[in-house]
Amino acid sequence: MNIKKKIEQANEVALERMSNVQPILVDIELEAMNVIPAMDKKTILHAGPPIDWGRMCGPTQGAIAGILVYEGLAANIEEGYELAASGEIKFDCNHDHDTVGPMTGVTSPHQPVFVLEDRENGRKSYCTLNEGRGKVLRFGGWDFEVLDRLNWMKDILAPALKKAVNHAKGIDIKSIISESLHMGDEAHNRNRSGSYLFMREITPHLMDTVDVSTAKEVFLFLTQNADIFNLNLSMPHSKLIADAARDIDYCSLVVAMARNGTDIGIQVSALGREWFTSPATMVDGLYFPGFSEEDACPDLGDSTISEVIGIGGFSMASSPAIVSFVGGSASEAVSRTERMYEITAGKSKTFTIPSLNFRGAPTGIDIRKVVELNEPPLINTGIAHKEAGIGQIGAGLTSAPLEMFHEALKSFGKKYL
Amino acid sequence: MNIKKKIEQANEVALERMSNVQPILVDIELEAMNVIPAMDKKTILHAGPPIDWGRMCGPTQGAIAGILVYEGLAANIEEGYELAASGEIKFDCNHDHDTVGPMTGVTSPHQPVFVLEDRENGRKSYCTLNEGRGKVLRFGGWDFEVLDRLNWMKDILAPALKKAVNHAKGIDIKSIISESLHMGDEAHNRNRSGSYLFMREITPHLMDTVDVSTAKEVFLFLTQNADIFNLNLSMPHSKLIADAARDIDYCSLVVAMARNGTDIGIQVSALGREWFTSPATMVDGLYFPGFSEEDACPDLGDSTISEVIGIGGFSMASSPAIVSFVGGSASEAVSRTERMYEITAGKSKTFTIPSLNFRGAPTGIDIRKVVELNEPPLINTGIAHKEAGIGQIGAGLTSAPLEMFHEALKSFGKKYL
Repeated sequence: MNIKKKIEQANEVALERMSNVQPILVDIELEAMNVIPAMDKKTILHAGPPIDWGRMCGPTQGAIAGILVYEGLAANIEEGYELAASGEIKFDCNHDHDTVGPMTGVTSPHQPVFVLEDRENGRKSYCTLNEGRGKVLRFGGWDFEVLDRLNWMKDILAPALKKAVNHAKGIDIKSIISESLHMGDEAHNRNRSGSYLFMREITPHLMDTVDVSTAKEVFLFLTQNADIFNLNLSMPHSKLIADAARDIDYCSLVVAMARNGTDIGIQVSALGREWFTSPATMVDGLYFPGFSEEDACPDLGDSTISEVIGIGGFSMASSPAIVSFVGGSASEAVSRTERMYEITAGKSKTFTIPSLNFRGAPTGIDIRKVVELNEPPLINTGIAHKEAGIGQIGAGLTSAPLEMFHEALKSFGKKYL
Repeated sequence: MNIKKKIEQANEVALERMSNVQPILVDIELEAMNVIPAMDKKTILHAGPPIDWGRMCGPTQGAIAGILVYEGLAANIEEGYELAASGEIKFDCNHDHDTVGPMTGVTSPHQPVFVLEDRENGRKSYCTLNEGRGKVLRFGGWDFEVLDRLNWMKDILAPALKKAVNHAKGIDIKSIISESLHMGDEAHNRNRSGSYLFMREITPHLMDTVDVSTAKEVFLFLTQNADIFNLNLSMPHSKLIADAARDIDYCSLVVAMARNGTDIGIQVSALGREWFTSPATMVDGLYFPGFSEEDACPDLGDSTISEVIGIGGFSMASSPAIVSFVGGSASEAVSRTERMYEITAGKSKTFTIPSLNFRGAPTGIDIRKVVELNEPPLINTGIAHKEAGIGQIGAGLTSAPLEMFHEALKSFGKKYL
């Protein structure tokens, strides 16, 4: 069998495995370190490929300094910065701990995390709970408002949702995401319908398990943050699907794509855990009043796990309303999705796009096609201020740099040619 | 000023008045006869233009016989039919009592009704609460399952929602409908997002006003019927908007379009309460397993009030996923909406269609344009079995017959030429 055929077959296997994943929200763990592999009290995880403290972008440094205060390891933000720079804290990237996080993606030992499990193969993934809009840790915020909310999430939100999730005996996230694509979401930057569908599932169980004033408090937090709440369920769901395609010999599909605000990196199925990186790009965005591209941090976050499985920027045709948030026109949203069929291995059986007559979403980024066609994967994303403590300043569109795909393909060629 | 200019100006006034309407759900009245004008214990209202008992279609006769049992005026369904035929019951059409109802549209003195008020001008509209899918009165069902559910709605659902609505001091339905068009609804046959948005608004107030087991029971009923629950809020909302365009001298816009399963009729702003009717059409539909067009009742219900204000069939481009329910393709859904711009007076400022780059929905059916272009208004709709007691058998697409527009235009010409 020639090598091209071997690759095609391996990619088919990958698509089939991805398609079979059944990501279920099975629990909320109140302390991440109890479940995330190889995490101790001094481990802080972040988005994107691995990076040293010194090279981290402003918002990630700020979020880490802030979370060290939350963790009780620093008395204030200045001490947080000092401790982070001291070498005492072990930094590592989420993806290498079965975890994902939006924007700075900071995940600390005592934050609560969603626990998703693939009922097909027992694999797990983890993600913190979404803080909502405004000043938030994931965009580099670290003031009292941010820390107060994180404490409320730990003390009230997460325990209540945990009871409800346990009472529900798990919630099927794939069916929520798939339905939300028929309701105007693309499940990366637009998650409104997905959040309402999650509320549909969780609310009766909240009513059964917590007192009514807590149930109401939680319900209101979810509704007020419906635009974005479901992202932190969509992402670990996508992570489980992408992870099913890992470590398949000859498979040329991307299994992770993530940014840390300094670098963007990909991992490829046949190439194990090696990261192929390029400098993170600037985002072509719509900015909130008072901000411009000069203020922007480069592309940031693990949320491009969405694009890896064919939703997010790859399914923008499902979500014409998103252009009012990330820019562009509805017809461009359709043509963007259409272009992504050129660089992907197949069409999703699960995620379908109504405006394209229910065509399956373009799934499985093939590094060979990206290089051959010079067609980069498209990303839509939020934009953080480049300095810590400010937060989100807009949202927009970008594409993954081609260089890292060239590097990955070179490595792939070395292994198999 | 020539007459053409007078008509154009009148139609502009109508669009402006429609645009200013603020339909708020202000109350749920537990007994319709307490609020619906000119309704007494022996009045039964129905959908469409006025019609005598003898000419009514099977499902409407069955729904009336059934509701007479519900009302305690008949001991069983046979007695219901006898009483209905006896001449003792006064039948009239919903529209002439500030009311609308889907399919058979039967509205009886002791059913609970939504009360909507236009905060702009104090006008009110009424609609029963939606029963959900399956065997239901609005599709001609009348057995114990149907009557039990109606009693549960009267005893549990309506009182609970009433308390919540009163506690909320009203719920803005226009903002729900407008948002739902950005979430894949067209708010006539697809109401899923609208129902979730309504649940977002009502649930915290339910938690504040009723015991938790009732709140849960109501929440589950709403979620199980989310596909359709919001229709009975969308319709009286649309009625208030359309009513704002009534009785404007020289205005050639349709202010009501409704079917009773035998006839379809329109009312025109400048022509008062006169109905111009044609035989109701058959629907080109997707049928549930075991049923075909031979089983179908002709087009039925007041729900075309949606199309009168530019949503429903006129905004199918907002709702590509609906084609899996009513038939056609996503691209046809777009071209249908585009054709409706040809026969309407303007674009909605409130209802916008993301996939058409947020173009306003085609609003205000101008009888002159319909006749001149031979272009009938498009309708999407549910399909009832032609015999009573069976219920919904499908959903599909049809268009309003041109004849009644010719008749209306003749009458318009007589008045003004």
